[in-house]
Amino acid sequence: MDRRTEILRRAAEIFARKGVSNTSVEDIANAIGVKREAIYYYFRSRIDILLEILLPTSRTLLNSMRLICRTDLTNREKLKAALESHLSEYTPGYIEMTVAFREEHFFADTEKASELSETWDEYGKLWTDIIIDGQEAGEFNADLDPKMISFAILGMCNWMSRWYNPSKDVSIEEIINTFFTMSMDGVSTLPKEQPAMKNPDAA
Amino acid sequence: MDRRTEILRRAAEIFARKGVSNTSVEDIANAIGVKREAIYYYFRSRIDILLEILLPTSRTLLNSMRLICRTDLTNREKLKAALESHLSEYTPGYIEMTVAFREEHFFADTEKASELSETWDEYGKLWTDIIIDGQEAGEFNADLDPKMISFAILGMCNWMSRWYNPSKDVSIEEIINTFFTMSMDGVSTLPKEQPAMKNPDAA
Repeated sequence: MDRRTEILRRAAEIFARKGVSNTSVEDIANAIGVKREAIYYYFRSRIDILLEILLPTSRTLLNSMRLICRTDLTNREKLKAALESHLSEYTPGYIEMTVAFREEHFFADTEKASELSETWDEYGKLWTDIIIDGQEAGEFNADLDPKMISFAILGMCNWMSRWYNPSKDVSIEEIINTFFTMSMDGVSTLPKEQPAMKNPDAA
Repeated sequence: MDRRTEILRRAAEIFARKGVSNTSVEDIANAIGVKREAIYYYFRSRIDILLEILLPTSRTLLNSMRLICRTDLTNREKLKAALESHLSEYTPGYIEMTVAFREEHFFADTEKASELSETWDEYGKLWTDIIIDGQEAGEFNADLDPKMISFAILGMCNWMSRWYNPSKDVSIEEIINTFFTMSMDGVSTLPKEQPAMKNPDAA
């Protein structure tokens, strides 16, 4: 593992454990056993390191989502695939890192920071598109606001980094199945009221 | 409005807008038009101010949840009431503030910080209890892990502070209804598979 990769890995661990705002470049240097200057040789700042951690995962998620949207799966199946893709990229401390990024972004108007914001925007939009397409195809309840639904599902998933403990909790697969059942059918044992259809012929 | 209250209100606005980690006691003082010392007369630090902002809302939510759990409502109705209570306390920048609190909490092991953690723990537990009771009463799908479900619903709600814009988006009431429908029946137009029952006689 080269020094650059080592810095990114150790920084990600420390960010997840004690929060970005409590981590200095010096802390990262100490954890690796080098001087601060050795970190500055590769990165300009803590936010630069954070960007390098968040960008690859975010790009991977967006690319995977673009592919999912271009398949011939039903929208129900696309949503399952989207959940699988999103949760298999689970990262501890993800919320903490995205919050720190948003906060520090005010002061780091670089090209990479814009790329990250744009990646997240397009990613959210593709989730909403699946809901809209599913409503038009009669697969999903057309009474519900599609943006609210896609953000509800993403919120469900992203909140995981606040309670999920990979070492003692259940498997990611079980979480995917639970969130999918919940998104599709909810928790109630009562039959659904007949949901609204945009296009009843398609159902 | 007394000076103390004024500090708390302005600090909450600034925290929500630019993030706790980018806000200094000096920023808060400047926004009010006083010297830093005037802030330190009331609060020991930024985290002290943050605690005073988060504690009252958290206590209100917990008390309201305790009452909901002691009513004779069905568990379905309790969940609706819990959603109403949680979302009516909507605060912009809530996630940012809770993340900042968790990060800085490492360094602020005060009585108030412990009270906030305990309040959040008990609050989450009461949500899970409603799911467990509902599963035992045959109201909710007993196949699903109750903790995962309660955290999914709380995640859905808490993520709101990342996308909801009170000035141009829909009403909180519409969000409550959407999240309730989603939690109870999901988005799919297909009939549910027969969910598992812990206690089929109760249904």
